[in-house]
Parts: sequence; C-alpha cells; structure tokens
Amino acid sequence: MSGIWGKRIEMSLFGESHGPAIGVTLHGLPGGVQLDLDEIKKQMDRRRPGQNAWSTPRKEADSFEILSGFFEGRTTGTPLTAIIRNTDQKSRDYGRLMHVMRPSHGDYPGYVKYDGANDYRGGGHFSGRITAPLVFAGAVAAQILGLKGIGVGAVVTGIGRQTAERIDSVSFGANDLLLLKEQNQPTLKVEDWEKLQQEMASAKKDHDSVGGTVQCIVTGVPAGVGDPFFHSLESHLSGLLFSIPAVKGVSFGSGFDLSAMRGSKANDPYRYVDGRVVTESNHNGGILGGISNGMNIDFTVGIKPTPSIGMEQRTVDLETGENTLLSITGRHDPCIVPRAVPVVEAAAALAVLDMMIWGGIWN
Amino acid sequence: MSGIWGKRIEMSLFGESHGPAIGVTLHGLPGGVQLDLDEIKKQMDRRRPGQNAWSTPRKEADSFEILSGFFEGRTTGTPLTAIIRNTDQKSRDYGRLMHVMRPSHGDYPGYVKYDGANDYRGGGHFSGRITAPLVFAGAVAAQILGLKGIGVGAVVTGIGRQTAERIDSVSFGANDLLLLKEQNQPTLKVEDWEKLQQEMASAKKDHDSVGGTVQCIVTGVPAGVGDPFFHSLESHLSGLLFSIPAVKGVSFGSGFDLSAMRGSKANDPYRYVDGRVVTESNHNGGILGGISNGMNIDFTVGIKPTPSIGMEQRTVDLETGENTLLSITGRHDPCIVPRAVPVVEAAAALAVLDMMIWGGIWN
Amino acid sequence: MSGIWGKRIEMSLFGESHGPAIGVTLHGLPGGVQLDLDEIKKQMDRRRPGQNAWSTPRKEADSFEILSGFFEGRTTGTPLTAIIRNTDQKSRDYGRLMHVMRPSHGDYPGYVKYDGANDYRGGGHFSGRITAPLVFAGAVAAQILGLKGIGVGAVVTGIGRQTAERIDSVSFGANDLLLLKEQNQPTLKVEDWEKLQQEMASAKKDHDSVGGTVQCIVTGVPAGVGDPFFHSLESHLSGLLFSIPAVKGVSFGSGFDLSAMRGSKANDPYRYVDGRVVTESNHNGGILGGISNGMNIDFTVGIKPTPSIGMEQRTVDLETGENTLLSITGRHDPCIVPRAVPVVEAAAALAVLDMMIWGGIWN
Amino acid sequence: MSGIWGKRIEMSLFGESHGPAIGVTLHGLPGGVQLDLDEIKKQMDRRRPGQNAWSTPRKEADSFEILSGFFEGRTTGTPLTAIIRNTDQKSRDYGRLMHVMRPSHGDYPGYVKYDGANDYRGGGHFSGRITAPLVFAGAVAAQILGLKGIGVGAVVTGIGRQTAERIDSVSFGANDLLLLKEQNQPTLKVEDWEKLQQEMASAKKDHDSVGGTVQCIVTGVPAGVGDPFFHSLESHLSGLLFSIPAVKGVSFGSGFDLSAMRGSKANDPYRYVDGRVVTESNHNGGILGGISNGMNIDFTVGIKPTPSIGMEQRTVDLETGENTLLSITGRHDPCIVPRAVPVVEAAAALAVLDMMIWGGIWN
Repeated sequence: MSGIWGKRIEMSLFGESHGPAIGVTLHGLPGGVQLDLDEIKKQMDRRRPGQNAWSTPRKEADSFEILSGFFEGRTTGTPLTAIIRNTDQKSRDYGRLMHVMRPSHGDYPGYVKYDGANDYRGGGHFSGRITAPLVFAGAVAAQILGLKGIGVGAVVTGIGRQTAERIDSVSFGANDLLLLKEQNQPTLKVEDWEKLQQEMASAKKDHDSVGGTVQCIVTGVPAGVGDPFFHSLESHLSGLLFSIPAVKGVSFGSGFDLSAMRGSKANDPYRYVDGRVVTESNHNGGILGGISNGMNIDFTVGIKPTPSIGMEQRTVDLETGENTLLSITGRHDPCIVPRAVPVVEAAAALAVLDMMIWGGIWN
Repeated sequence: MSGIWGKRIEMSLFGESHGPAIGVTLHGLPGGVQLDLDEIKKQMDRRRPGQNAWSTPRKEADSFEILSGFFEGRTTGTPLTAIIRNTDQKSRDYGRLMHVMRPSHGDYPGYVKYDGANDYRGGGHFSGRITAPLVFAGAVAAQILGLKGIGVGAVVTGIGRQTAERIDSVSFGANDLLLLKEQNQPTLKVEDWEKLQQEMASAKKDHDSVGGTVQCIVTGVPAGVGDPFFHSLESHLSGLLFSIPAVKGVSFGSGFDLSAMRGSKANDPYRYVDGRVVTESNHNGGILGGISNGMNIDFTVGIKPTPSIGMEQRTVDLETGENTLLSITGRHDPCIVPRAVPVVEAAAALAVLDMMIWGGIWN
Repeated sequence: MSGIWGKRIEMSLFGESHGPAIGVTLHGLPGGVQLDLDEIKKQMDRRRPGQNAWSTPRKEADSFEILSGFFEGRTTGTPLTAIIRNTDQKSRDYGRLMHVMRPSHGDYPGYVKYDGANDYRGGGHFSGRITAPLVFAGAVAAQILGLKGIGVGAVVTGIGRQTAERIDSVSFGANDLLLLKEQNQPTLKVEDWEKLQQEMASAKKDHDSVGGTVQCIVTGVPAGVGDPFFHSLESHLSGLLFSIPAVKGVSFGSGFDLSAMRGSKANDPYRYVDGRVVTESNHNGGILGGISNGMNIDFTVGIKPTPSIGMEQRTVDLETGENTLLSITGRHDPCIVPRAVPVVEAAAALAVLDMMIWGGIWN
Repeated sequence: MSGIWGKRIEMSLFGESHGPAIGVTLHGLPGGVQLDLDEIKKQMDRRRPGQNAWSTPRKEADSFEILSGFFEGRTTGTPLTAIIRNTDQKSRDYGRLMHVMRPSHGDYPGYVKYDGANDYRGGGHFSGRITAPLVFAGAVAAQILGLKGIGVGAVVTGIGRQTAERIDSVSFGANDLLLLKEQNQPTLKVEDWEKLQQEMASAKKDHDSVGGTVQCIVTGVPAGVGDPFFHSLESHLSGLLFSIPAVKGVSFGSGFDLSAMRGSKANDPYRYVDGRVVTESNHNGGILGGISNGMNIDFTVGIKPTPSIGMEQRTVDLETGENTLLSITGRHDPCIVPRAVPVVEAAAALAVLDMMIWGGIWN
C-alpha cells in the first residue's frame, strides 16, 4: 500500500493503533515559517477521545514530538516529521476479533488484502487513531495558509435524524470564522448542540451508534486554485476526505440538491463588488471547472455510524468457516462526528495548501 | 496543470474543444490484450451528442485513431494513444464570451488561472467534449476488467424533481448487467425514462437546463482492492468522478442517508453463502476501510444542471469592468445526465482497474 | 510500463517506430509563452537521420503537428501534444529478427518483458526514433528557459579512440554559447571534427559501429535549483539521460577523475566577483549537495556503439532454441553520437526546467 | 523539497544531522516477510563511523527503533518506519560555518535554496549521516530480494590513484557473493586493501581527503525488469545513486570504456547454456534497452573526495561579503569510500526491488 498523499506537499502517514508510535512526515513545506506548537496541540485536543460522554473513555495524551524539519521555532523546508507515542495499549485478548469479523469495519477486507499479516490490534493501520497525525499535519498547513489570510472552519450540521444550522457560505467571512473558533460547541448555534447531544446519548443508551454530517468552509482562497479535470480542487479535496474512516459522501456547495435544480436557479450570477468579481449565490461551493472562483470553498461530508456497537450482530467466523453472532464490548464512541470536525478541517487545509503550491500561487 | 491521472494505469489526457484534436494516452496497460474496437466505438456513441431531442444537435463523429501501443489487434504493453479529430468547429464569433463570463461555467476561474492565455473557444480544455477520450480509455479498461469477470453498469436515477428506480446492489449480478447493456433507455425501467424525458423537454422549452443523478455498479470485484487511507477505493473513484465536469456530489452505498442511520441498521451483517463471505445488505457500497469487501461496488454521483442556458443571466464583463446581462445562444444540451452515464462508467472502470493492478491483484 | 517523466513538467511519451505516429504530451508548461516553431524544427533536423555519410539513409521528414495546448502562437498552459507521423515504413520481412535476438539490443529483454506482445518492427517502442518527440519537448523547454537567460549547448568530445576538445565550464558564457549554436560541426573545434569523421568512416567501412562521448553545458542556472537527496539535480538529469538509448555512463564536472583526486584539488574555491559568489574551478559541474551553485552545469555522457552491425555475430534463435549466427543488413548508423547531441541537450533543458518549476524558482 | 523516492516501494526519508532523530518510512512493502533485525544492524554497522583509522572518531550507535509496519517479527504490508536517535551532538559553536561557506559542500546552495532557514548544524539534512536510514531501508529490501534468490554485493575498486581488482561480472555467482560477504576487507582481494589503506593514511597525514570508486553487482535478477525509456533500470538506479552525497559519476558495465569501443567488441554475444539464454561477455552490465537481460547487473560509481579538509582553503564569508580563508577543524573522514559500500548496496537493492514490484515481477 501507499500511505503517501499530495502533489507538492507530499504527506507520508504511518503507524498502527497498538504499535510503538504513529506519525507523519510532511515534505515540500516552505522553509522559515514559524509554527505555534500550542495551537497545533489545541487542534489535536479537539480530536482526542476521552473528554466527554459521547466519546470513548480511552486516554490518549496525543502529545507529539517533532523529529525533523523544525529548527529554532521555524520550518526548515526539509521534511518535517512528528510522532505520537501510543501509550494506552491494553494488552487485552484480541483472540476472537482475529477471526470473527466486525460488520462494516475494515478488518475483513484488510485480512484479505494483507493475507492475515496485518496488525489486527485496535484496527491496526485502519484505526481512526491514525487521524491524529493527520490533524497535526492539517494544523501545520492551516498555520501556513493563515499567512495568506486563508482560514478553515467546520461545523457539525447533523447527527442521526437531528439537523443543525448550516453556515451561509455567501456571507461568511474571516470575522465569522474567528467567532466560530472561540465557540465551545461544534455546531454553529448552541441550541442545536443540545439536540445533537441528546441524539448521541440516546444511541449510547441503546448500545448503538449514530452518524452525521459536517460542513466545512475555507475562506480567503483566491480564484485560480486547482486544475481542470484530474486535479480539480474537488478531486483533490474529495480524495483526501474519503481517506477519513467512515466518510461515505462528499458534496460541494448545494451538492446533491443541485441535481434537482434548474440551471436558472443553480447558476451563481456574477457581479462586481468593490471592483472584485463575486457571485450572488454560492451553489457551486466556490469551485467552477475544478478551479476556485474566489468565493468561499464550501463542502459537506457524510459520516456513517461507527461500526463497533454493543448490540448483537450477525457475522462470520473465518476460523470455523461458520456464521456466528458478535457483541463488541469495550470502549467505543457512540458517535465520532464531533471528533471528526478537526479532521475534516485538516484535510481541507492540506488539500488547499497543496494545490496552491502546486499551482505556483505562492511566493 | 497536470492532465495525468492514476497510480499504475497512468492516463494522460489532452486537447481543446476547438483545437486540431483531443486524445488520451494510457500507460501501464497489460500487453497482449485483444481489444474490440467496435465495442469501444459503441461506448463512445453513447456519449456522443446530436442523437436526440435532449442533446445538442452538434455533430461529432468522434471516430478515434489509435496511434501507438496497439499491434495486430492486441495491446503491446507500451503507451496506447488514441486521438479524435475535432471536425465540427464553427468559426463563429466568440467575441463577447471572451470577456463576458458565463455563470457557473469554468471560464472565469480558467481566465484567472491561465492569465487569459487559454483557448477560450468552446470551453477549450474545460469542455465536456474532453470526456470523449475518457470514454475511450474507460472502454479499454472495461474490456480488460471483463477478462476477470468484472462488469460496470450505470443508470440515470433522477433528473430534476423526477426520480427513477435504483439498482438493488445486493441482488444485482452479472446476468442483470448483461440485460442492462441491451436496454435502449439509460434508466433501469422503461417507464421511468418517459418521466425523465418530460422533465428534460420541459426545461428545454423554458430555455433552461436541469441536473440529475447517476448510480453506478461494479460487479465481480474481489475483496482486497484499494489501500487504507489516502488511496482508498473511495478516494480513487471520487477523485476521478469529480474530474467529470458538472459532478458536484459523490456518495457510496447508502451515502448521505447513512448519516441519519444508527449503526445497528447501517452495518452490513456478514454470512457465508456457498463458502463465500457475503453481506446481507450493502449500505457500505462494497467498500470498507477503503478496500473492496467482495460485494458489488455501488456509488452515486450528483450532476448539476448545464450552466449554458438561453435565459438571461446577470454577470460581469471583464473588459468593461461592469455588471451586464447575458443570454447564451447556440447549441446546448438542456440536460447532460443521460450522456454522462458512459462517462461515469468509464471513470469506474479506470479507477478499479488501476487499483487492482496497483495492488498486485492481477496476474 | 510508464512512459511518464517529471515532477512538475510531466512528459508523456508514446509511439512505436513502425506504428502510425510517435509523439509527446507536455503537462505543466507555463501558459502564454510564444513558441518559435521554426527553431523547434531546426532542433529536430539536427537529430534527423539521412543527412550525411555517417547516418542511416532512412528518410524521415519528422514534421510535427501540434494537437493541443497551443493557440494563437502561444502555449495555453494546458497539455501540449505534438505527434510525428511515421512515413518511411518499409514493409520488409522482419521474420528472422522476430526470434533471432540482436546482441546488445533491447529486443531480447523486451521480448521477455512483454511476453512477445510488443511491436517488434524497427525496435518498436525501444527504437531510437522515439527520441524525436523528446527533442521536440526539449526544444520547447529550451525556449522557455531562454526567457530566463538560461542556455543549453552540447558538443561531441570523443568518438572511438579519438577525442575532441572539451568546453571549459569555468569561462564558457552566454556569448560562447551563441557562437557554438552557429557552428556547422558538432565539436568545439573544426579540426577535431575531421578526426572524428574519419573514425566513423573507418567503422562503417568495416561494417562495424563506434561509440563516443558528449559534453553538455547549461549556462545561467541560478543557485538553488534541485533538492537534496532523491531529487538532486544530478539524480534528475541522470534519470533522463539514461533514458536515451545507448547511454551507459553519466558524470558531472570532472566526474570519475574526481575519484582519483585529493580534496585540496577537487574542491572548488569560492570568491566574490562583482558581488556575486563564483568558484575558481568547476570540478563539481555546478552542482553541490544536489543543488545548483550558480556555476555552469557541466556533465558528460558516454554512449556505446550502436548494436546493429553488419559483421557476423553469435546469438540465439528463440524459436529453435539453438545458437546461431546473425549479420544485420539494412540501414544503420555506424555512429549515433553526433545525432545524440540535440537529444542530450533536450534532456538537459527538460530536467533543469522541471526542477526550476518544481522548486518554485519561476514566476 | 521532496524526500520521497520510488514508484512502488515509496521511501520517505527525513532528519537532520543534529536534530532529535533521522529516519525513513517504506511504503508498499509486501506483508508477511520475516525480517532479521540483527542482519539489518550488521549492515548499518558497516556504514557507521568511528571504527578505524580512516573514519571520523565520532561515535554513533546508530541503533534503530521500528515504529510501525512490523508485527510479530514480520512486515505487515503497511508503512514501515524506523528512526535513529541522534546522540553524539556536540553543542559546539557553528558560528563561523554559518556564514563562511565550505568549498564543494552543499551548504552554499542549501543556504540559497532555503533562504537561510535550514538547520546548518553538521550539514543538517545534507549530512552524510542521512544515509544511515537509507542503509536500513536497503537492508530491508535486500532481505526481501533474498527470498527470490537475488543478492547484492559491492567492493571498493579504487581510492585516489590506487586501484583494486574488479569483480568479473560474467562469472560471479551466488556462491562468490556469499564468500564476499564473509570477507573483512571492502575490496575483492586482501592485498589491494593494504594499498588503498595507505592511500587514505597518506591523505589523512596531509590533512587532506581522497576519493574513490565502488563497483556493485546484483546477482539473480531475472530478465525483464525495468521499463524502456524514462523508467529504465539504469535511470532508476542512477537516480538513487546520485542521491548519495559525493557521487559524481555512474556507469553500467564497461561504462565510459564502451565509448571507445567498436560494436563488434562491445556487443555481448548470446548463447544457450543449459537451456537458458546468457551472454558471453557483459559489457552492458546486464541491462539492454533499459531492461535486465538476466545477466548480473554491474555498475560503478565515482565518489569525490570529502569536501571537509583541514588544509586552508579560499572561500567567501556571506556575512561580511568578502573573500576569506577557511581551515575546517573537527572530526572528518579522510575518505568515505569504504563506508559508502553498504550505501551503494542499499541503493541497488531498493532500486531493483522497486522496479520488480512495479513491473509485476513478483508474487
């Protein structure tokens, strides 16, 4: 397999959930950029489990160590590597999960692909834990984008059957983004957060899990980022977003709703405002012909419920070759959607930065 | 920009709508594979415009010429190049469209990106016409996949506010695919096609356009295709699907509906059938942890309405620097969704073949 | 196989010697660059056979057709494709050469690799003829480099046992390059050319062939081009140079002679001249730590004798499975070294341009 | 910059000489391969300094820690990362070397490229120390190649003006390789090693350094490995070999000597031996048309003298903008050629393994 992503910022991701460490190397970063390590830590804490009722009580300090590419507080321009030690590794018996497959989990296809050689403990390289170094990388990318006035913010827009208010991508600006960053809840409105928490609590009570949606906005991206066709900004973003475990849908702007619209409604009219070309609506999510048009980038990801649930499920035992039943015990999030918010932001920051440097829109 | 896609089957796409020719080079094909050129032509005809009421009357013979990599009826294993001459190039005056931007079209970001150097005629390299060589490439890939018993079929599942029946990805098999290929309409059911044609006719009458959705199934893919994370089958498919002009959403299996489900419903239970591991439902679209699980691959794309409409729209004139109005005259499809079906199939065939060879699941 | 090269300028090469056409697509070119097509033609004529005693009488017009990426005399920034039709294809009987292997030729490993599916006629994709589109691509790259004051020039420095004067890479400047371009002989000095021609004539008389060396200089490259380690300028140049059929050695600056030197002699002392850092000698060929140091890039390639000779050789017949003898009749150059000069220049121009754009040293 | 190399085995290299750690991630390794960690350690010890008179007394334990991709003694098929902590970091004053450039060292172009942001201590990312993880990676690749009966061995063939006997690549077999591995000296013959050691001692006495050459043989490579043109085995090997600091020349088989030969002598005649196609000579170093022909791969690298010498040198001071003199004190090898042997072997193993997996010649 290849754990390398990117055209100009090449990211190399490694690690297993229960191995010595997980980590990431970022190649192609500009040199001389000051990094705020506390800010990176803060982003990683947003993803970290064990902080509230709806996430696993598993303790992960997630403290990172930078091994290279960082000197006297600044990037050097050479490959930047950070690792995160795995500390809370319970040496519990994985015995049954080695051959009884968890429905909708990556273990069965992983078993087939790696012919049984992969590290089965805690999901191994398939674990959601591998998104921790992704958040590290995204936090670095976000700080670099910040130097050009580009910001990234995401919110939970739905959990289970409950929805939350979406960001209006036409009016949302840099100041709104600052306010969003200071909020304590992962939704745009506090009142929505109450509803969504109840939805998670209800699923937990039933030993079940629940999915949701996340909307992400990137402000300040100039027109001209992305290539037509294969390296469209949509292609590049979606490729990275679908890398995030449990993401099953990605749409831009009004997304699938556009399919039901007529062109006269879906088209975003242009107009000059203060000498700058803008659009009156943003159904296209800031991307036309694969290339940014200067409006906010706006996309939504759909996240499936976590597959590990306590309820009894029908499955197979590869050892006996027979059908069986499985109840997954242990520490599992009833809903990973709130923790996915910084991961989605990380993916957005990395994809936009990569395409900007690739396109030479940087200096 | 880069017009190169793929990890092991590297595809190089080139051409402008009104230049001498468009074409594609496929690197990394296995050698010694017999190609049925008539079958390729048939696939290209499905995409070709000018065949019915809902597509542009523009005539494009779309006859291809293979320049390399093909000898005595078989692939040689060296780069295979095919070109399609552009014949129906009206030398009409593009004057106003050079500086009056078409809303929701790629011309404005393209203008910014290429600093006005790009070929503006007929959309240039942004034209939907560039999907013709993509269909050629996909038809080659589909024939190679066919040698392993893998098939690809797509149907229109909605146009505007009208929906059509979806394929049941649990029961759909190789025989169903053969029947689908013999149908004359792009929907699963004949009766749905009537409804959808009326929706297109209505938009046309109003000088407007309309979007839609396409569902695609890949049958016969063995478990184990795809990498975890960055080169997940979902990442690879979506990257190519979002290259297709007008695609604004991609989802796998039950897609965004999964976000509203609980895990107990969304999880696909395993069972043994004739010694083979299958799932009882296929909400995950045949992909878990980024890797195929042996079930049918099932995904849906959302396509926006074609931006070029006859109705008057508000826009800007880059020459005068002022707001203006624009009515786009000329030959335009009111709906490209039916013609997108073979393009979606092409993308699916290419992405699956590429990941299979990449993963060494080929011999 | 992959016929794609480059990190930022991605080049896709295709074609067989006796197929319909050979060609190249250049992705990632800057847009808006005016191209002098006559100058490109001139470079291709330098490589073209059939012009004198020491090259094959085979006629190849080598007239190219640009299919895409070029509009109103300028690059568009989208993929630029050029093809060259194969016209002088004698339909002679290749029968015996299909199974009797030519010593030191690529046909035997090609047969094994492609399992007999490759186009055996005239070397197929292994043919030296495939360097024609490489010269096209290099001529485009050289014109773009010229906009930044960068020039490329190569000379023959030896054929068989005869050597010719080398360029002094310390003193050689832009003006010397202009003079070199106006010369009629491929050596620095006219008198050397006489000697070398006799060496070629002597080999021809004996139905034999002879090798040689080519030195290449790139003037005007600023310091800072290239990456440390894997994408060193030396790595990038050598990778492309060893793609040229018959090249068996590549060295930079004083090359293998450096192995016999002491550091005190091999090190190039720095000094300031007119406020600019230069070196007093250039044993390192303008590259240190994989990165240009602002001096002339200077490298040498060693080219083996053409394998196709009229003299009788011992070889094997794959059909009979027995040892046999082979005399290769037909049109063959006794020496390809003079014709390799524009090919080496093309490789140099492409590698330097690619690394400059990759490194962001372009605007 | 990009520190990523390879097409199918993607290698990500990171670290600075005086940072916390250096390391490497190998993507794309086959899963389930048992690794002998002691054997890897042994290879790294061959490169390690501080072991004899002609290498720097600097102590580097070079003990590696595997962080991922390795479980229960076997590769998992997911990315394998190993790091080596930097322990012997003297916090000496680099003051003057921050602005006084070392002739023929990478510091000046590095300074220009990274605009002064790079880690200047001990060469930073340019340090020869970064070859330690390369040897780790090569040792892993060599063990995997060993499963297919492929072996890699290199010897010193010259230091300064003294030469040592070369391996005869026609007769050298797997048994000869085993004997070579058991030798204590890095030359083929013990007596040559005496001569070469004297040459190094003499340079050291003069506070000078000296270069040399290394020949490398890869036995057991089947015919058919490598692509024509851009990804020829020669291109792939040379690209990685020129990544090794101080390598200034690479040649295959008889290399530059071929340039002076006639085809009748340079061509390697084929013959059947025990039903297998072999060549009587191996002037082409086992590679024809860029592809292995089944004979031993044979290549030679030329290594320049280490640039850091105690003798006084002319150079520039970037701070004062004036010419100055520099004597480099501290711990420096008078000759790195013997320590380069395992690095060259590592590069050979990686390049051959990568092209074999790329070409699908693996199962």
